[in-house]
Amino acid sequence: MQTETTRAVVSDLYDAYARRDFDRVATLIHDEIDWIIYGPVQVFPFEGQRQGKVAVLEALGGIAKDYMVERYTPEVIIVEGERAAVMSDVAFVQRATGRTLRFRIADLLRCQEGKVIEFREFTDSFDLVEQALGKFIEV
Amino acid sequence: MQTETTRAVVSDLYDAYARRDFDRVATLIHDEIDWIIYGPVQVFPFEGQRQGKVAVLEALGGIAKDYMVERYTPEVIIVEGERAAVMSDVAFVQRATGRTLRFRIADLLRCQEGKVIEFREFTDSFDLVEQALGKFIEV
Repeated sequence: MQTETTRAVVSDLYDAYARRDFDRVATLIHDEIDWIIYGPVQVFPFEGQRQGKVAVLEALGGIAKDYMVERYTPEVIIVEGERAAVMSDVAFVQRATGRTLRFRIADLLRCQEGKVIEFREFTDSFDLVEQALGKFIEV
Repeated sequence: MQTETTRAVVSDLYDAYARRDFDRVATLIHDEIDWIIYGPVQVFPFEGQRQGKVAVLEALGGIAKDYMVERYTPEVIIVEGERAAVMSDVAFVQRATGRTLRFRIADLLRCQEGKVIEFREFTDSFDLVEQALGKFIEV
């Protein structure tokens, strides 16, 4: 069943990320992955579009350089065929300041050959920028 | 099958919204709905948390007052049991300026009794604020 294969890949991926096992994460990323984290690259240089596994691992490395995963809890997982959606409750410590950023993430994924080949990530990026800067944005 | 019921509700909901049939939308909202559009309420007063159908219809009315749906195209729909995720490519005309805001939306929904009872909406809210204000935010 494609749905159960996808569920296993997604479960493996988020478990690995939550325990910071980035080697395991890497094995679950397809060489030809098409990846977007929606958000402002001037604040989060690891966000935006990436093509291919090498570029994605570089982006993940960029996140890990600036932030430490404190909590990554999938609250909702929806799987159908090769696609999945995951809403997570997360906390990341900003290494430069020691401050904790708390937010929710919605990911949409597509799997192929037991790996993630398409990835779209959404957060409330306005709130996240305010948390990262430690101040309110004047609008 | 719960999955097929959910798929029918979701399909009905997004079709109705895309053709601006808000009466039909209203019939698909559960009285006890728990609703969040993640984003800054100082820019988008219709965002944030709402409890119950009356409050949600008021929020939808707030969107319609400021923006006109130009395009609302679900690109990905994932359904499992009572839950669904929908990623849409959308365009809204800002009535005050005539400018068109283009963005992607990720929704997570849960259905009960043929209606939506839980709703979470994510956008790249930082980008959306810049589009709404018509200028870049200094950070």
